[in-house]
Amino acid sequence: MDLAPSPLARPFPDLPAIEGVTLRVARARYKNWDRADLTFAELAPGTTVAGVFTKSACASSEVEMGREQVRLGEARALIVNAGNSNAFTGIRGREAVEQIMAQVAEALDCEPSAVFVSSTGVIGVPLPKDKARAGVAAVLEAEPCGWEEAAAAIGTTDTFNKGAGASAMLGETRIELAGIIKGSGMIAPDMATMLGYIFTDAAIEAAFFQEMLSKANAATFSCITVDGDTSTSDTVLAFATGAAGNAPLASWDDAGADAFYAALLDVCRELAQLVVRDGEGAQKFIEIAVAGAKDDESARRVGLAIANSPLVKTAIAGGDANWGRVVMAVGKAGEPADRDRLSIGFGGTWAAKDGQPLADYDEAPVAKHLEGEDIRVDVDLGIGEGRATVWTCDLTHGYISINADYRS
Amino acid sequence: MDLAPSPLARPFPDLPAIEGVTLRVARARYKNWDRADLTFAELAPGTTVAGVFTKSACASSEVEMGREQVRLGEARALIVNAGNSNAFTGIRGREAVEQIMAQVAEALDCEPSAVFVSSTGVIGVPLPKDKARAGVAAVLEAEPCGWEEAAAAIGTTDTFNKGAGASAMLGETRIELAGIIKGSGMIAPDMATMLGYIFTDAAIEAAFFQEMLSKANAATFSCITVDGDTSTSDTVLAFATGAAGNAPLASWDDAGADAFYAALLDVCRELAQLVVRDGEGAQKFIEIAVAGAKDDESARRVGLAIANSPLVKTAIAGGDANWGRVVMAVGKAGEPADRDRLSIGFGGTWAAKDGQPLADYDEAPVAKHLEGEDIRVDVDLGIGEGRATVWTCDLTHGYISINADYRS
Repeated sequence: MDLAPSPLARPFPDLPAIEGVTLRVARARYKNWDRADLTFAELAPGTTVAGVFTKSACASSEVEMGREQVRLGEARALIVNAGNSNAFTGIRGREAVEQIMAQVAEALDCEPSAVFVSSTGVIGVPLPKDKARAGVAAVLEAEPCGWEEAAAAIGTTDTFNKGAGASAMLGETRIELAGIIKGSGMIAPDMATMLGYIFTDAAIEAAFFQEMLSKANAATFSCITVDGDTSTSDTVLAFATGAAGNAPLASWDDAGADAFYAALLDVCRELAQLVVRDGEGAQKFIEIAVAGAKDDESARRVGLAIANSPLVKTAIAGGDANWGRVVMAVGKAGEPADRDRLSIGFGGTWAAKDGQPLADYDEAPVAKHLEGEDIRVDVDLGIGEGRATVWTCDLTHGYISINADYRS
Repeated sequence: MDLAPSPLARPFPDLPAIEGVTLRVARARYKNWDRADLTFAELAPGTTVAGVFTKSACASSEVEMGREQVRLGEARALIVNAGNSNAFTGIRGREAVEQIMAQVAEALDCEPSAVFVSSTGVIGVPLPKDKARAGVAAVLEAEPCGWEEAAAAIGTTDTFNKGAGASAMLGETRIELAGIIKGSGMIAPDMATMLGYIFTDAAIEAAFFQEMLSKANAATFSCITVDGDTSTSDTVLAFATGAAGNAPLASWDDAGADAFYAALLDVCRELAQLVVRDGEGAQKFIEIAVAGAKDDESARRVGLAIANSPLVKTAIAGGDANWGRVVMAVGKAGEPADRDRLSIGFGGTWAAKDGQPLADYDEAPVAKHLEGEDIRVDVDLGIGEGRATVWTCDLTHGYISINADYRS
């Protein structure tokens, strides 16, 4: 399937090389295509790792093993297979992952548990071991490549390559972060969604790195949705090589911890938003800001109920300031709300306040806002201090066309 | 908006007159249309009532008041306004409902609390009191009409008129049930969804009637979904005039209680399925049977997670036996499941068993089944005895076309 780039696509950014990270790609031909589909990131000894994974009860072997590996905190390599998710493939699927881990571990002279594997693509077909073996052999010998080549090689139905970077000063030491991500459908916010990889040359202890990533995830990857469908393989991994030479970060009290977190949060937010921008069939990027909820988590749930509502998403696709559908979505969210305190606005103009349409509501600026590509919806529940912002895209004929045909 | 009838439409059935129920319709012109949009059912003195309502936190005044009225257990009249839901209209909306109740109560010489009001249509526009007053005056004088005229008058985006009937023997007494319903979008199973009205000439005490209706609702209206969006106005009311003259039913031990419940359940199931058959853009009717869950409620939730998955619904629209998407939906349901015990089938053919695709899976009969109009999906979680069946429709370009344009 060749799709035109999303109208919301962003150009791939200039990303810095991260010392201690070497990228390579190869053609394993997991599908009948002529493109790189196996990605290898070699990581310097001493690299720490953090990860967040899908909460799916039917997670892939890659996810099950990744959860255990992250607890050990050490990484030497990442392998990403595109074109076959290896999910729901039983023992044969697990054996394929173990084969890849052993093959890479032998080449790098490291523990297999330091080799992280992700796979994305069709569900229910065991990853072919022969293609994986040949592909890994090829990628180990391949020339190093850049970020965009790696971002392209991990993609499946993505219509553009997605990356983000940031830097921060940890005392006198400048550190860099670079991340790549893939995903455009089967995107829903139940912890990590999609495959995302973030690399930094900062030194940071694994446990604290995990704490930071989990916190950033809650405000970024867990706040996006395309279709409310949660993949069996969703993974975000973050790797810190330590090559920058800063004193390793171990707690929020350490100098530079806040700066590093801010940079990490920036990268996570940008990567998360890029996935929404490649939402299947997306024509509009929608930011939904919820305030006045019982607490932040309640605000997030209300925001996602709105973001996942097919009626809200189709209304915005049609340029219709249909705030009644937003009321409906707030009502069904299952969170504390009081109809008579609820206010709703679009693009900075309130349409309804305190449970009633505004008497002097002027639809003209709202209609103008909805003609644009970046849509803002404001919801104030009026009952507390909880806040959250979530991101989604509209629901269009494109989503139907893509998904009524593609065997994912 | 004039839509062609759903390809899944059913002809309106022959429904018996229910003694003690008189139907009338009138033109209130709540919208700029030339059709009856105000429906009145006059109910004989002594009629008992039961009801189930949306759980929306932003329910309409009609729903709020209906919940209180049902507790009193007595009904003399039902008024249904089509074209304006009167939801999210604050005190002005409530006043319009109270005006209708008072006007009808005066005409019938009954308590206003015995007059039930429902409204369906656009959200956020107060029901115009002058149109309501003139419409009620007209309907009180109108000639009696039949079930199909009433079913047509309560509809909004419905593409066909929906009714169902049943009868039962309570000892020597034959009783009749007749029901009508409207709904095609904003349909999700959070207790009652849509507007449905069931009438019977049986005599049944209000509390026991409520118990029966709640039980039937759990297995029917709460097991359907079109788009996962729950309306602010959903209501199912059931009225029993007692004109058949049976000894009033008061408990499950009474002779005829089981027979009456079976008939009530039949009518509820048929009405619920008719709503799915008019699902916006629906081309296929989908039955999802879940077995082997922890308990029945868990099975229902898993079934609805599948039924609400845009990826499952688009796959079926495309005739694709994409059981991987069913695995995904089971995984995201948040219910107990074990990937390695999960089995999935279509139309009686298993595609995957015990967490793996079947080695000898023959896709031909499944592909043939998916070409049809009535689709069956079987899911066995393999961990318990819980069972549930839910009903939905596919997700097509029609849903997008209808909802990107219509201000609901």
